[in-house]
Amino acid sequence: MKKENFIELNEADVFSIVNEKLLKHGCDSKNAFEIAKTITAAEIDGCSAHGLFRIPGYISSLKSGKVNGESNPKVVQIAPVVFRIEGDRGFAPLALSVSYNPLIECAKKNGLAAAAIVNIHHFSALWHEVEHIALEGLAGLACTVSKPVVAPAGAKTSFFGTNPMAFSWPRKNENPMVFDQASAAMARGEIMIAALEGSTLPQGVGIDKNGNPSNDPKQILDGSQLTFGGYKGSSVAMMIELLSAGLIGESFSFERGKKDNNDGGPTRGGELIIAINPNLFGDENNWHKHCELFFSKLIELEGIRLPGDRRLKNREHSKINGIKISRTIYEKVKQL
Amino acid sequence: MKKENFIELNEADVFSIVNEKLLKHGCDSKNAFEIAKTITAAEIDGCSAHGLFRIPGYISSLKSGKVNGESNPKVVQIAPVVFRIEGDRGFAPLALSVSYNPLIECAKKNGLAAAAIVNIHHFSALWHEVEHIALEGLAGLACTVSKPVVAPAGAKTSFFGTNPMAFSWPRKNENPMVFDQASAAMARGEIMIAALEGSTLPQGVGIDKNGNPSNDPKQILDGSQLTFGGYKGSSVAMMIELLSAGLIGESFSFERGKKDNNDGGPTRGGELIIAINPNLFGDENNWHKHCELFFSKLIELEGIRLPGDRRLKNREHSKINGIKISRTIYEKVKQL
Repeated sequence: MKKENFIELNEADVFSIVNEKLLKHGCDSKNAFEIAKTITAAEIDGCSAHGLFRIPGYISSLKSGKVNGESNPKVVQIAPVVFRIEGDRGFAPLALSVSYNPLIECAKKNGLAAAAIVNIHHFSALWHEVEHIALEGLAGLACTVSKPVVAPAGAKTSFFGTNPMAFSWPRKNENPMVFDQASAAMARGEIMIAALEGSTLPQGVGIDKNGNPSNDPKQILDGSQLTFGGYKGSSVAMMIELLSAGLIGESFSFERGKKDNNDGGPTRGGELIIAINPNLFGDENNWHKHCELFFSKLIELEGIRLPGDRRLKNREHSKINGIKISRTIYEKVKQL
Repeated sequence: MKKENFIELNEADVFSIVNEKLLKHGCDSKNAFEIAKTITAAEIDGCSAHGLFRIPGYISSLKSGKVNGESNPKVVQIAPVVFRIEGDRGFAPLALSVSYNPLIECAKKNGLAAAAIVNIHHFSALWHEVEHIALEGLAGLACTVSKPVVAPAGAKTSFFGTNPMAFSWPRKNENPMVFDQASAAMARGEIMIAALEGSTLPQGVGIDKNGNPSNDPKQILDGSQLTFGGYKGSSVAMMIELLSAGLIGESFSFERGKKDNNDGGPTRGGELIIAINPNLFGDENNWHKHCELFFSKLIELEGIRLPGDRRLKNREHSKINGIKISRTIYEKVKQL
């Protein structure tokens, strides 16, 4: 990476430009604020693929009218520990922000609670929501589906989305442990970059359009991605379809593909979040210490780092040194 | 498989011999009954590795005094949607059987419920419990840890157990969809069989005691197994440690190894079960039909079968034709 290809911004700069562009293209202030917070958090953590890079997609979907930039999501408690959030055809961040308090308070009181979020357009990582929950002292699990680009184990054609699942665990005097991983063996963005660079990919990432194993990123983008870990990852991808689409009455991946207008923004869909209160499972006085022992033994092993560690290091670095943004992306966003 | 190496028994025969041997070696009638049901169900489904084959291990742990064959597990509701089941140092099946009704009724009413089962010895598959829950119209998720035989991604030594997770989904006029899979890339039993047969294993199954990749099952048994799908399976294994040990105040895999007397039976530990009622997530009139559409589209794909299909075919076959049992195992059990 040549230094001249990057500019350095601080948190407020990133927030401002995102907020401004979203307001200009049809978001109301609440929506723009929550999306800008999410995108800024991604840049701070070094996840540029979920940062400013996404702004053109957000704006395309505002312009095409697919997404409602003035959405007014509503939370309804539909069962003692279940909240349904009607996203009003908006982007996910505002719907998530209104779901947090009821979800967290309910889990704190009852042990478990779920948020079934529908009619949203999710265009960011899932670690934001589960980290938020873990900062409140709860464990969090979130999952969603996307367009069908992944073949189930054994099949030759796409049926599942990349189907991410994120999980968080609250820690004492440490940032929460958070992982956020697609059920696809490799992120689609990485395959796109490999296609641009003309590089080859390892076995197991994908198949061509005839269902034959391929190392060629272009063939895989025309064909199908594969799940991580073969049929076991495929089972996880299926579970995510059932929980974040079947359970909550939103579109499965195979349905999302058909309904989308392909404007470059996110497809409409749903998300399931479950929050778990470790203080209500019978080991309230010891679980924190016990789990810290687990983490300390784990990171003592040679070759180990905890999931999310790299993001946290980037975060620390960004707070001190500012955020590096690709000049190309920055210029593109500025001109929108 | 030569025919003369097998005998054919019916369901009642299998149940009777298991029940008799357990009663003889220290189980009371309730414990013997629930264990015999579980083992018989495994044999009916063609899972011989969880069938009569396990009886010597059950009996070793009764003889060594590690497991209480007369356990009297107690269910206490410790939060509005959380039950804690104190297993009284017994085998898992009786503790599971007393947990089902409160867990299922609570989830039916509230949307979600959890059972935190502690002080048990789990020596069977997890599909039994999640299938039971799905037959009541709920989705089920269960997980547990075991002795440390699996290296986390990047590490050279064992720290996680084989850490299975099972998930079920209720279906209309069909058996529930159930998967039950270890976080290890390959079942330990399969590696043991490969070691006996002197065959080699694919890459990614395990490492030798120095942490080098190995295809030799003996070296892997002396070294460590690996998780499915590299670091993503490793994250799943870690999540299972946190949910079925950290959350509920039971032993992590790394602790189980130290505490066990190595009598050939199961180690002491815990299990987490979550039940989810799809009727309380906002799509009560359509989710069944919608999910059946998903399953029908999925199995239309060339090369696909649903998880658990093979077990269900075996079950159908066993009900008509009886259960094939290895003569060697049968004779061994008869002599106990």
